[in-house]
Amino acid sequence: MLVVPERLIAGLMGPDEAFEAVAEVFRQTAGGAARNFPVVREALGGGRQYGFKSGMGPGALGVKAGGYFPGNAARGITNHQSVVTLFDPETGRPEAMIGGNLLTALRTAAAAAVSIDALARPGARVLGIVGAGHQAAFQLRAAARVRRFERVIAWNRTPERLAGLAAVAEELGLPFEAVPLAGMREAEVIVTITSSPAYALAAAHVSPGTHLACMGTDTIGKQEVEPALLGAARVFTDEPAQSVTLGEAQHAVAQGLLDPARIVPLGAVLTGEAPGREDPDQITLYDGTGVGLQDLAVAARVLALAKARGLAIPVEI
Amino acid sequence: MLVVPERLIAGLMGPDEAFEAVAEVFRQTAGGAARNFPVVREALGGGRQYGFKSGMGPGALGVKAGGYFPGNAARGITNHQSVVTLFDPETGRPEAMIGGNLLTALRTAAAAAVSIDALARPGARVLGIVGAGHQAAFQLRAAARVRRFERVIAWNRTPERLAGLAAVAEELGLPFEAVPLAGMREAEVIVTITSSPAYALAAAHVSPGTHLACMGTDTIGKQEVEPALLGAARVFTDEPAQSVTLGEAQHAVAQGLLDPARIVPLGAVLTGEAPGREDPDQITLYDGTGVGLQDLAVAARVLALAKARGLAIPVEI
Repeated sequence: MLVVPERLIAGLMGPDEAFEAVAEVFRQTAGGAARNFPVVREALGGGRQYGFKSGMGPGALGVKAGGYFPGNAARGITNHQSVVTLFDPETGRPEAMIGGNLLTALRTAAAAAVSIDALARPGARVLGIVGAGHQAAFQLRAAARVRRFERVIAWNRTPERLAGLAAVAEELGLPFEAVPLAGMREAEVIVTITSSPAYALAAAHVSPGTHLACMGTDTIGKQEVEPALLGAARVFTDEPAQSVTLGEAQHAVAQGLLDPARIVPLGAVLTGEAPGREDPDQITLYDGTGVGLQDLAVAARVLALAKARGLAIPVEI
Repeated sequence: MLVVPERLIAGLMGPDEAFEAVAEVFRQTAGGAARNFPVVREALGGGRQYGFKSGMGPGALGVKAGGYFPGNAARGITNHQSVVTLFDPETGRPEAMIGGNLLTALRTAAAAAVSIDALARPGARVLGIVGAGHQAAFQLRAAARVRRFERVIAWNRTPERLAGLAAVAEELGLPFEAVPLAGMREAEVIVTITSSPAYALAAAHVSPGTHLACMGTDTIGKQEVEPALLGAARVFTDEPAQSVTLGEAQHAVAQGLLDPARIVPLGAVLTGEAPGREDPDQITLYDGTGVGLQDLAVAARVLALAKARGLAIPVEI
């Protein structure tokens, strides 16, 4: 078995490699060449969440195990902890174990970027970010790759926390402005990346023609945007079954505002099987729930890069 | 993270340590201190099966990943392949990765032995084994620990394959005899360990007062004994939900011969919450479906032993 520890990931994979790996997963899933297995997700008590995302594609069989451990920050380690194990699909032997923390951030940001690349208007110039947690900076970096944005506007419930995002925008050479929610009407692309039980962004805060990537809702009960937005938008997702049950679409579907049959797998747009944006004034919305195949894809890519550079650590198992 | 490779397991754990670890899991599960998470089990094509068994107990949070890969034998490696990953329940950090092949054999045999210890008549002297695959020898060794057997009788569809089991019996100092199925009427304890779509052992082959441990059925469609046996017996299991859906009880329940409410968790017998055997002529039957907590328990025990002897291999993750 080979091990690629968390420490090495940042030197091996950035937004470009993650984008390619995740886009490939969307295409494979749409074509039936890859599939996600059922997700296991369990509350352990004390706010701890733990579970497994797994699947099999042409290049990878494996599982991401991990979760959310809110006591970690006080110990000086990140609350989100995960590790990816890849298996040889022919023999079932463990092939590699790969630190999954940075990879999870990169693949989540990459999935949003793939949706922006496929669905946002080509001339979009203003990027809006809703949320200022750890993941927001990854979303900004990945989104900035796929459109020539000229400005970043952002909102967070606690505006003081936007300083980190402002620094990333500066590093990318993009003017940055903290705005009230109503200010999001200027954005042509909006990424929401919050962990909230009630929406902040309302339909009235979103202009016609906007593309939204809603990346924060991966559990029953979380909510980022007003359900009416999904009722009015053309809705896309990574995994329709998850979108309806634990993704952002759960609320609009439950309220009868969104017919589940209207939710389009984003992969079908990439392969040309389904249309993407249909007109410049349409609101498009990507409901990113997060799937195991995305984790396996970035892990397999990082393993290949680590092997090529002689960095993967051989371990007997 | 620490790694305990497959090669080291045989030197660290035998039937005694496995028995203690598995018995403790039965007690913890009955007391509500440990629970299994939902099982993921997927067909990969070409006869390959892959999945995850996971759970959390007082001492362990983790997952066994692996499956059955029928092409392995031709490659000189075992068809059943698995690996256990343990996580720190407080932080979610990977604690250890442990070879799971031998551990799976040991914990399956240990579970049957726990059932024999709790449910077979104290004076049982004749042990019957139905099946002669790789796992049968483990079952024999584990069963021989818990009763003073004086004789082993065995049946297999292909009798020539019983030679390996005969050798193990000889090693244990037990007379061994291959018998027809009707010969199983002499047995006071019968362990079935086959992988079959149709039963071989019928009710007419089993004498009153016998304890059966049915260890081979862990999938929809497998079957080891005539369903009428379960209808007449007092039935125990590791996990009632699995027993009814994918264990040996699936057939008797489907045919209306066994009320699911009659299936007793074996742990409740060990903790004294439920009676075990009620009279010497009763047939008792343990439906061993195999649960993740058993895997985690033997893995945690082997990790502790490896650490104590300085054999666990530190690996950065």
